[in-house]
Amino acid sequence: MAEKPANTVLFSPQHLREFTTQVFEYFNVPTEDAILAADVLAYSDEHGIESHGIARLKTYFDLLNIKRINPRPEIKIVRGKGSVATVDGDNGLGLVVGPKVMELTMQRAHDHGSGWISVFNTNHYGAAGYYPVMALKQDLIGLSMTNTTAGVAPFLGAEKMLGTNPIAIAFPGYKEPPVLIDFASSAVAYGKIEIAKRKGQLVPEGWCLDKDGKSTTNPADMIEGGALLPLGGGGDQTGSGHKGYCLAAMVDILCAVLSGANWGPFASPFAIHVAPPQREVGKGIGHFFGAYDIEGFRDKDEFKRQIDDWVQTMRGSKPQPGQKEVLIPGDPERRAYEQLMKEGINLNKEVVSSLEEVARHTGIELSPGF
Amino acid sequence: MAEKPANTVLFSPQHLREFTTQVFEYFNVPTEDAILAADVLAYSDEHGIESHGIARLKTYFDLLNIKRINPRPEIKIVRGKGSVATVDGDNGLGLVVGPKVMELTMQRAHDHGSGWISVFNTNHYGAAGYYPVMALKQDLIGLSMTNTTAGVAPFLGAEKMLGTNPIAIAFPGYKEPPVLIDFASSAVAYGKIEIAKRKGQLVPEGWCLDKDGKSTTNPADMIEGGALLPLGGGGDQTGSGHKGYCLAAMVDILCAVLSGANWGPFASPFAIHVAPPQREVGKGIGHFFGAYDIEGFRDKDEFKRQIDDWVQTMRGSKPQPGQKEVLIPGDPERRAYEQLMKEGINLNKEVVSSLEEVARHTGIELSPGF
Repeated sequence: MAEKPANTVLFSPQHLREFTTQVFEYFNVPTEDAILAADVLAYSDEHGIESHGIARLKTYFDLLNIKRINPRPEIKIVRGKGSVATVDGDNGLGLVVGPKVMELTMQRAHDHGSGWISVFNTNHYGAAGYYPVMALKQDLIGLSMTNTTAGVAPFLGAEKMLGTNPIAIAFPGYKEPPVLIDFASSAVAYGKIEIAKRKGQLVPEGWCLDKDGKSTTNPADMIEGGALLPLGGGGDQTGSGHKGYCLAAMVDILCAVLSGANWGPFASPFAIHVAPPQREVGKGIGHFFGAYDIEGFRDKDEFKRQIDDWVQTMRGSKPQPGQKEVLIPGDPERRAYEQLMKEGINLNKEVVSSLEEVARHTGIELSPGF
Repeated sequence: MAEKPANTVLFSPQHLREFTTQVFEYFNVPTEDAILAADVLAYSDEHGIESHGIARLKTYFDLLNIKRINPRPEIKIVRGKGSVATVDGDNGLGLVVGPKVMELTMQRAHDHGSGWISVFNTNHYGAAGYYPVMALKQDLIGLSMTNTTAGVAPFLGAEKMLGTNPIAIAFPGYKEPPVLIDFASSAVAYGKIEIAKRKGQLVPEGWCLDKDGKSTTNPADMIEGGALLPLGGGGDQTGSGHKGYCLAAMVDILCAVLSGANWGPFASPFAIHVAPPQREVGKGIGHFFGAYDIEGFRDKDEFKRQIDDWVQTMRGSKPQPGQKEVLIPGDPERRAYEQLMKEGINLNKEVVSSLEEVARHTGIELSPGF
């Protein structure tokens, strides 16, 4: 077993799933939905995406506790035409609304060659990559996006106007693993700024702005009223930050403007201690799901064998000096999964404290599970 | 009139269109197709996207001249299902195949709520933004991507393995102009490296690598066998270059692996003096077009009014210190259009020389047109 990182506690993945499921059930989430929601959160923890897993359970707990999230949503298609539709998430957990709408999206892909569903009146849905992975199991190309609470400045802007708005898409391979793409449209995740602050380190130029919209390398300046920069960074005209701004805008419009959710700076915060935005321009936040039936374009196995060739070609290319290899999108998550499922999941002590609080409140037992 | 930039010649936009049309006709491209191809090139020049317009006419000329491009393609749907299809471009000009396939894509959106066509056996299609602008005229959301000759290294890779693979998407406004997104997935365009070299300037860290895969700020190092970096730059693990790599991979797979075109390092070069790739893994290069019928999701006018609100909200946000304003994706192109259609288009002397060569060879008159 690798050395245990300092200030962490090791948990069994299975125990964390059970704990999470019981917490959702405690709030009257139907068992089937609670298992689903726990599966979405576990996907993150088991693939090394620490920021989107059980570390957020306390926030879901808080929002369910003050009844800001509906534990028993009735998800409804409110409009549609052939391959596309809009769904009202009935203010449910994004962790429940998301997988259910992805199922509807895949059904449309089977029926119409592709499926596209924009969702309003929903909440934080975990890691974007979970949803295209669902599609892989049906040999579809799957896609998901979500808008999130504003934390990112527009290109050359000083204020938080857009979320970190992630995009995920996956392509199945034949013998090789799938190409699994999942990334936020900001220069970096907010979590990286927090980590730098905790360690007393500076961050590179191009990651964030201070509260006056000035470029800063001090993470505290960003955290105290500043903003993240869009992917491409650059606080000036020579940067490529307009590209990240474009991506964030695309995600925001497809998820929220198209569905009727709150967009841009009006996206509902995923926290109870944050003041709500000044205006409501829709309901909840928005997601956007997509799926393609590969067979509508090309023989499925032919496609998958070409993906194998693509993967082998990229892996076979020369790495930069000092680098061991060229990776395929999805490799880091796959490697983390193999390690974590064998060795267990290390949660840092702050996360463990938040779970202990949940355990105390609900009476559900939290233990390492080993 | 603004001061004329040094080393340029001013042309009338209309004359450039006529010259381009005649050049294509000279090679037996049907008149209707020649006008279409000229329209695609003119879109770039008239919107300030200098790199993708008439500056490339000499290359199209070269490729038609050695019969590497088919002047009279028969575009065929080879496979399809509901909203999706694959098209064989019959090795035509991308400038002709592109608009025709975008029409087919929009038809599918009208019939099935969305339309998606992947194209193989095609060639360079001009600026990606031309195609979503076609969709705006029918109140659709339009999308286009293309793969291109490899010039970009994978994240942490040393070799050119992917093209600058652009993505474009546009959303119609009601009274406000559309949100028009069009950007390459590389850190910067190759043209920016060339310009820096011409001016004897260094480029920022994170734009490119030298022939050994080492980060460089000397543009000549990149030009002589080096590679561009993906969007997010960063020659090391702390960068966000994996995000640009993911985007380039997505475009490459949707355009070329899905259709049966040449992908990754095997994409056909857009030049006659470049050695062809070592392997053929498909036919020609690939494009990917998409369209959504807004009405399938939401009342069209309601959507467009929300886009107006979105645009006004972003514009109304605070710019960074020293910046005049926050722009909307598409503003730079719109502003360029207003100016250029009034004042004319300045072509640099190298481009003019290349056109004079075309004029000499074909006997078609090139004049400023004023």
